[in-house]
Amino acid sequence: MDSRQQLLNKSNEAKEIFLPHLSVDPVIFGFDRNELKVLLLKMNYRKQWLLPGGYVRKDEDLDETVQRILKERAGVTDVYLEEFGVFGKKNRSEFYFEDFDETLFHKQRFISVGYYALYHPDRFNLVHDELSETCEWVYLSKLSEIELAMDHRDIIEKALLTLREKISYKPIGYNLLPEKFTLPELQKLYEVILGKELNRGNFYRKIKSTGILQKLDEKRPGGAHKSPDLYSFNIENYNKLLNEGLSSW
Amino acid sequence: MDSRQQLLNKSNEAKEIFLPHLSVDPVIFGFDRNELKVLLLKMNYRKQWLLPGGYVRKDEDLDETVQRILKERAGVTDVYLEEFGVFGKKNRSEFYFEDFDETLFHKQRFISVGYYALYHPDRFNLVHDELSETCEWVYLSKLSEIELAMDHRDIIEKALLTLREKISYKPIGYNLLPEKFTLPELQKLYEVILGKELNRGNFYRKIKSTGILQKLDEKRPGGAHKSPDLYSFNIENYNKLLNEGLSSW
Repeated sequence: MDSRQQLLNKSNEAKEIFLPHLSVDPVIFGFDRNELKVLLLKMNYRKQWLLPGGYVRKDEDLDETVQRILKERAGVTDVYLEEFGVFGKKNRSEFYFEDFDETLFHKQRFISVGYYALYHPDRFNLVHDELSETCEWVYLSKLSEIELAMDHRDIIEKALLTLREKISYKPIGYNLLPEKFTLPELQKLYEVILGKELNRGNFYRKIKSTGILQKLDEKRPGGAHKSPDLYSFNIENYNKLLNEGLSSW
Repeated sequence: MDSRQQLLNKSNEAKEIFLPHLSVDPVIFGFDRNELKVLLLKMNYRKQWLLPGGYVRKDEDLDETVQRILKERAGVTDVYLEEFGVFGKKNRSEFYFEDFDETLFHKQRFISVGYYALYHPDRFNLVHDELSETCEWVYLSKLSEIELAMDHRDIIEKALLTLREKISYKPIGYNLLPEKFTLPELQKLYEVILGKELNRGNFYRKIKSTGILQKLDEKRPGGAHKSPDLYSFNIENYNKLLNEGLSSW
């Protein structure tokens, strides 16, 4: 079946199941120690890349929508997502389905709710749905080289800005770094997310002053230079800071 | 015309003009030096209090929606709002219109986008629309004494949490305090928003360290005790901090 027919077949079923005009778009970032990636699908139709988004079932809460869609379209389960923006320009998706007529469910105006999360990519076994030819992690540094559908580039950009703002007042790193890590590794995580180099002395002083780190009686073995100290997170302080924020009054 | 007939008349017009299933709810907080208030309508129908929300026109961007509705329903113009949450439980509004049948536009399932802002109440000349008997500032401390429609109490609560989180990393006070203010006045603003008392020494030290304050060569005249120093905001530093956040890396 060609990709056009596939969408036409889905359209009638979609009208039965889903609310009109509403979609969700999850931006799942992956951190693999060196760079940030984002989870994208390449759909059979048009061969452009998209976020693994979808529509809201008439019989489900909105919170359930994004979890169901990630499972169906990417094989991604058990993620904690935060809503970061609603994308509601009236013509945001009109061109994408231009070679269909107005009766196609997918072609109507959609206002899309954006969610984001940041995980270690190893956590997931990606699969793709029947509408897509692949589901992959794409490095943010490669995004300028690919074709992204509709306003999905803007959605990813807004998610990244939200993530950067978030780490200015909430701790990060748990579940992204190994249980024991070095300060250079933690600094690298911040630098990758912020997209800029940080002054080592300032970073060490500031991160230590938060109380979220616990210095271990171990050093990372091997290496040509002085073996670096190992740290782990003080989970109690880490969680306290997650709730209260770094610079609470 | 009774309030029931008024809604029935509006319903047919609404189906022509608005997208189904989507609404917006603005939470406008007012700070009047002593307490926080929130802007609410009391609708003719049911006489319950609600946020001045509404529906999305088919021919407008979502950003335009909330501005138009605030003007139409409350006379509020020129406000900068931030989206803070989407409220999408499937039964969130079903009981409110229970004495209508399913053909009423207002009775369908709505997923609502929440926006908030914080202003000095004197800035606005409130009016109310024909569906409401009043539009007023209601003190947050009095909310427990009034009947709020649907999940609007939850929406206000989430907006307040967002505002509290926001002031942990962004400056606040410009446009809320007089041009020249004292440190106790600024502290009171933070205490009112946070809903708790702050240690004076810690607050003074921390707020001064941000660089957003400029000490003036004046003292507040009068008063029985020692005249307090007057301050104004250093707008350059204030705006820098608005962009970068208080605890940027």
